[in-house]
Amino acid sequence: MKIVLIGAAGDIGRTIYDALGDRHEIITAGRSSGDVQVDMADFASCVALYDAVGRVDAVVSAAGEVHFGTLTDMTPEQTMVGLRQKLMGQINLVLAGTKHVADAGSFTLTSGILDRDPIQVGVGAATANGGLAGFVTGAAIQMPRGQRINVVSPGLLQVSADQYGAWFPGHDPVSSRRVGLAYAKAVEGTVNGQVIVVD
Amino acid sequence: MKIVLIGAAGDIGRTIYDALGDRHEIITAGRSSGDVQVDMADFASCVALYDAVGRVDAVVSAAGEVHFGTLTDMTPEQTMVGLRQKLMGQINLVLAGTKHVADAGSFTLTSGILDRDPIQVGVGAATANGGLAGFVTGAAIQMPRGQRINVVSPGLLQVSADQYGAWFPGHDPVSSRRVGLAYAKAVEGTVNGQVIVVD
Repeated sequence: MKIVLIGAAGDIGRTIYDALGDRHEIITAGRSSGDVQVDMADFASCVALYDAVGRVDAVVSAAGEVHFGTLTDMTPEQTMVGLRQKLMGQINLVLAGTKHVADAGSFTLTSGILDRDPIQVGVGAATANGGLAGFVTGAAIQMPRGQRINVVSPGLLQVSADQYGAWFPGHDPVSSRRVGLAYAKAVEGTVNGQVIVVD
Repeated sequence: MKIVLIGAAGDIGRTIYDALGDRHEIITAGRSSGDVQVDMADFASCVALYDAVGRVDAVVSAAGEVHFGTLTDMTPEQTMVGLRQKLMGQINLVLAGTKHVADAGSFTLTSGILDRDPIQVGVGAATANGGLAGFVTGAAIQMPRGQRINVVSPGLLQVSADQYGAWFPGHDPVSSRRVGLAYAKAVEGTVNGQVIVVD
């Protein structure tokens, strides 16, 4: 398959590349790195991404900024970061992409554990994650030309635990192998409208 | 209790008023009707609402616009309507409200069925509903002074079925009695961080 991978430079993005790169053609994309640059929060930039890469069989997104902070300190603007970037950014990839993805192609988005196993600074991420689950549920029944859409919701990755583990007391980090399998299931399998949990 | 009810003029808002009004003092609020006017999407307007009503024991929101349309016709702007109004609007009520709500008081938000039982024109609502579930999960563990937060997720109401039923083939509308009980559980009970489903 020809796959465009957005957020390829992050921990999850690299894990996806390692899991799928040996048997698919992967075009990497990111805000400031990769084969093509894209700002997901800007719909026109998403359209330009698809114009640049041409027809693809799968879109995989592992991108999306959120603000980490406690509820009583969060401003509306900080809350909106996750809604504009992680939630609406990934939705933009779908809205702009359905015309460009092949028949029976797929979209795989990325959420995370914080809407089912919350942490102190995670309300922004939890909100975006829940929105992505809702979007995928609502979108899956309407995808054109046999296209599918799913969202992978991984726990804290083992490879990210050194950097972020202090925010996740008691969480058991997940292996890159199992995270990679979730994306393989979404891209190469037949599931549709699912939140694929990796705990 | 002293309760401020936002979205009091809608079908769900009237149901809540009927369920709780005989035993609590309810101040009604809405964009263009009620005792106090508020534009939830505007954080400053939410702050002004709390300044107007003073200390309350419970905040109940049954408000929030979404765009109804099919995925392949949805523009980013139409998708953002639900994120700004139904999702961020209700979040604004919480961010602005924690300082004004009494110790051990509560926030009760409203989502809906479309993120678990989707309909053709419901992707915008599904996204906002999922976001609200994530927000409540993430916020509940951080509420100050013993405050609680929940979201009620009702199916199509019997009283709304004449107007909206054609969009919901096969859905079994829910009674106002059962919807009222869900809000009573959230406001008068002890649950926290729950999506209270009324199917």
